[in-house]
Amino acid sequence: MSTLSLLFEANSVAVVGASDNPHKIGGRPIAYMKRLNYQGQLIPINPKADVIQGLTAKRSLLELDMPVDLAVLAVPDTLVKSVIKEGLSVGIKNFVIFASGYAEINQQGLEKQHQLQALFDGTEARMLGPNCLGFINTGTQLVASFTTAMEQHPLKIGGLSFAGHSGALGAYWLDKTIHADIGVSKWISSGNEANVPLDEIVEYLATDPQTTIITLYIEEIRHPDKFESALLLAKNNNKPVIALKGGKTAVGARATAAHTASNPHKGVDYEGIFKRAGVIEVQSLTDMINCSQFYTQGLRLLGNKIGIISISGGAGVLLSDQLEANGLSVTGFSDQLCSEMDPLLPSFTTVQNPVDLTAALVARPQMLLETSQQLVNSAEFDAVVIFMGLMDSVAQQLTDALLQLKSKPTCPVLLIWMGGNKTLIAQIAQHGILVFEEIPDLVTLLSNVKT
Amino acid sequence: MSTLSLLFEANSVAVVGASDNPHKIGGRPIAYMKRLNYQGQLIPINPKADVIQGLTAKRSLLELDMPVDLAVLAVPDTLVKSVIKEGLSVGIKNFVIFASGYAEINQQGLEKQHQLQALFDGTEARMLGPNCLGFINTGTQLVASFTTAMEQHPLKIGGLSFAGHSGALGAYWLDKTIHADIGVSKWISSGNEANVPLDEIVEYLATDPQTTIITLYIEEIRHPDKFESALLLAKNNNKPVIALKGGKTAVGARATAAHTASNPHKGVDYEGIFKRAGVIEVQSLTDMINCSQFYTQGLRLLGNKIGIISISGGAGVLLSDQLEANGLSVTGFSDQLCSEMDPLLPSFTTVQNPVDLTAALVARPQMLLETSQQLVNSAEFDAVVIFMGLMDSVAQQLTDALLQLKSKPTCPVLLIWMGGNKTLIAQIAQHGILVFEEIPDLVTLLSNVKT
Repeated sequence: MSTLSLLFEANSVAVVGASDNPHKIGGRPIAYMKRLNYQGQLIPINPKADVIQGLTAKRSLLELDMPVDLAVLAVPDTLVKSVIKEGLSVGIKNFVIFASGYAEINQQGLEKQHQLQALFDGTEARMLGPNCLGFINTGTQLVASFTTAMEQHPLKIGGLSFAGHSGALGAYWLDKTIHADIGVSKWISSGNEANVPLDEIVEYLATDPQTTIITLYIEEIRHPDKFESALLLAKNNNKPVIALKGGKTAVGARATAAHTASNPHKGVDYEGIFKRAGVIEVQSLTDMINCSQFYTQGLRLLGNKIGIISISGGAGVLLSDQLEANGLSVTGFSDQLCSEMDPLLPSFTTVQNPVDLTAALVARPQMLLETSQQLVNSAEFDAVVIFMGLMDSVAQQLTDALLQLKSKPTCPVLLIWMGGNKTLIAQIAQHGILVFEEIPDLVTLLSNVKT
Repeated sequence: MSTLSLLFEANSVAVVGASDNPHKIGGRPIAYMKRLNYQGQLIPINPKADVIQGLTAKRSLLELDMPVDLAVLAVPDTLVKSVIKEGLSVGIKNFVIFASGYAEINQQGLEKQHQLQALFDGTEARMLGPNCLGFINTGTQLVASFTTAMEQHPLKIGGLSFAGHSGALGAYWLDKTIHADIGVSKWISSGNEANVPLDEIVEYLATDPQTTIITLYIEEIRHPDKFESALLLAKNNNKPVIALKGGKTAVGARATAAHTASNPHKGVDYEGIFKRAGVIEVQSLTDMINCSQFYTQGLRLLGNKIGIISISGGAGVLLSDQLEANGLSVTGFSDQLCSEMDPLLPSFTTVQNPVDLTAALVARPQMLLETSQQLVNSAEFDAVVIFMGLMDSVAQQLTDALLQLKSKPTCPVLLIWMGGNKTLIAQIAQHGILVFEEIPDLVTLLSNVKT
C-alpha cells in the first residue's frame, strides 16, 4: 500500500489558520467539509478562537487532545515552518501547504523550500505542496483545498481522478466535470512537489480502488523512471491515463519555472514515456474531459472503422476527410449492408459510407433510427457517428428516435448536432450518446481513444 | 460588371411553385421576403391559386404582365425543364433551381442536367443550381432560398458573404452568424453548378461593394485558373478570403461525388492556389466564424508578437506552448517594459511574458486593467491575449476593468474566459474584445490571421 494512502484518505483533519469566514482560504476547506458531511474528524486551529464555523477549535496543534492524520496549513509562508515542527512534534504524519513564495519565485525561496524539506528527513511524514491548492477525496468528502470551483455545485462521486501542477487548471477541470456530470474520485494539486511528486501520486492512483481513469496536467516529472513504472501499473490495472503536458516549448518552459519551479527541458523524453505506457496526450482540458466522458461511460473503441450517418452531404464530406486524415477509416459497406440500407434511404441517395440522409429526413424522421440501428447492428463498424444540424421543426422526433437507438458496448454511437436544442441534447447525452457541437472535437476524441 | 449582378441583385422575383404554407419549400421564400420587406416586386406563381400568402398570384410565368429579373423554381425536378423554357420565352434572364435528382445521383441524372444546361446555350441567361438552397441578398432582403436557418431570427446586415457547395453547411453558417451577431451581405448555395460555378461567384463577390469578407465551402472548382484570378482580385480589393475545403481525402472525394457531383481529385492544386492568393484555409465552420468576426471588427494582426496576461500559471504555460508551436512569438519584455510592469504586479510574481497575475487578482481586480493596458500601450506586441477562468466572486469587477481597456487597431485584445459568466462575456464581446472558451480555439484564430 502506498504511504500516500494515509495522506489522501485521512480520517481526521486539523485546519491550521482556520477562519470563521467561509470565503477565506482558511475558512473554505471547513465550510466545504461541513456542507458535504466529511466522514472523519474535523478540527479548526486558530490561536484566537474557541469556536470556528460552529466547531470547537484548538489554539494550536500542540493543544490537540487526539492524534490527527492530516494537518492542512492555511497560514502565511512565514509561519509554515514552525507549524510543521509543532505538527511533527505531536506525531502528525501528513501535511498540506497552501502558501506560495518558495522555489517558484527565486533562490531565496528555493532555500526556504529546502528548509521545509529538511524537516521531513528521516521521518515517514509527508507534505503536499507548498504552492498548491491541496486535494479532494470524494469517498469521505475530505476537502483539503481552498478551490472556489465547488462553491456553486458539489462534485458527483465517481471514478475519474486528476493530479497536476496547476491548481487553477485543476479548478477549471473540476468545473468541467460538474457541467459534464462526470463522477470524481481524487483531485490533487501537487504544486512545487517539495516532498510528494507527481510520479508517486500516479503510483497511488494506479492502485487506488476508487480510481478508474487518471487525468494529469504535467509540467516537470521529478523521477521519470518511477513515473513510467507508475503509468505501466495503471495500464496493467486497465486504467486509461490522459495527460496534458505544459512546457513543451522553450518559452513554455520559461513560464513553468516561474509557475511551479519546474524545468520541463531536462531532457526527459515525455513522448517516449507516453507512447510506451499508452498515455493519451491531449491538447486542451476540453479534449481531456471529452476523453474522460467516453471512458466513464464504459465505452471503448476496439478498431478504427467508423460508419457515418449525416443529414448534410457537406458535413459527411468534412467528417470523412478529417477522420481519414487522423488514422480512422470510413470503410465502405459490404454488399449485404448495402442491400439492407437501400430500402431505408430516399430513392435519390447513393448507398455508401458516409450515408447522406438529405433534407428528406424532415418528412421521414424515423429514417434516422432505422439507418443508425442498421449500422450499429451490422458489426461492420467500431463506432457510428451521426451528424445533424438545426432541424428545429422535427428536433423532438429526431431526439425520440435517438432515445430508442439500442447501442452496443462494441459500437459506441456519437452525435454532432450543430445548432441543436440544449434541452434535447441533454436528454440524448443521458441516453449514453456523446454529443458534440463541432466536427473537429469529435474527430479529436476518436483519434485520442483509438487503439 | 459581372453578369451575376442581375441574378444576385434582382429587383423583381417570381416564385414558381409558390405555396400558401410558409413552412413549405415553395412558401418559405415568400414568407421571408414578406416579413423582411423585400425592396423589389414579388410575384407568386401557382397554377391553382389567385392569392398566395396575401399576394396576387399568377398561374404561370407565361401570364406575367411585367418583365421579372429572376424566377425561383420551387417545383419538382420533373417540371423544371418546362418551367425554364416558359421563363426564357418571356425574357427572364435568371433562374434558381432548388430541385435535386441530377448529376449528383447517377448517369441518367447527369443527362437530365445536361438537358437543362443546353437550354442556356447561346443565351445570356443564368441558372443557379440545380440541387441548391438558393441565395440571399440582405441589401434588398431578397431571399431566393428555402433555408430554415432564419425562421427564428433575421440576419444582421453587414459585409460578410458566403458561397459554397453545401446548402446545409451554409445554413449552419447562417445560424452561427446570427448567434455571433455578424452582419451578412450575400449568402449563396451553388449546388451542382450546372451554369453558375463557384469561381464566377467569387469573382462577383470580389467586386461587390457590399462584400468586405468572403467565406467559402469548396468541393470542386470547375475553372481553377478563373478561381485563382478571382481570389487575387479579392486580395487586391483588400477582402480576406476564408475557405473550408471538402474532399481532401479519397473517401471524402467519394462523398462529394454523391453530394454535388463534384470531383475534387482532378489534380487541382488547391493548396498552391490558396497559398498564392493568400486564402486562409480553416478546418471547421467555428474557425471560419471566428476569423470572420476578427476581420468584421476591423482587426488585423500586423506581426506575430503576442503578449499574455494570465490568472493561471498553467494556462499561461499552455498558451505559450501552443502559440509558439503555431508560428507566433511570446517575446520577452524590454527592460523598460519590465520596470513599468514590476510595480503593477504582486511582489512574488516574476515579471515576464506570460504574466502570471495569480490568485492575487481576487484581492486586486484593478491589476487586470493596469497590466493589460500597459502591454497594449507598450507597442511591443501585435496582440494581447488575456486568460481568465471562473472567478465568480469578482467577475463583475473584472468585466468592468475590461470594459475600460482602451485597445488599439494595431494591437487587438483577445480573451479566454474558461467557465465564465455568459452575460458578462457578451458585454465584453460588445466592447470589441473577441472572447473564447478554450485555448486551442484562440491559438487557431491567431495562427489563421497571422500574416
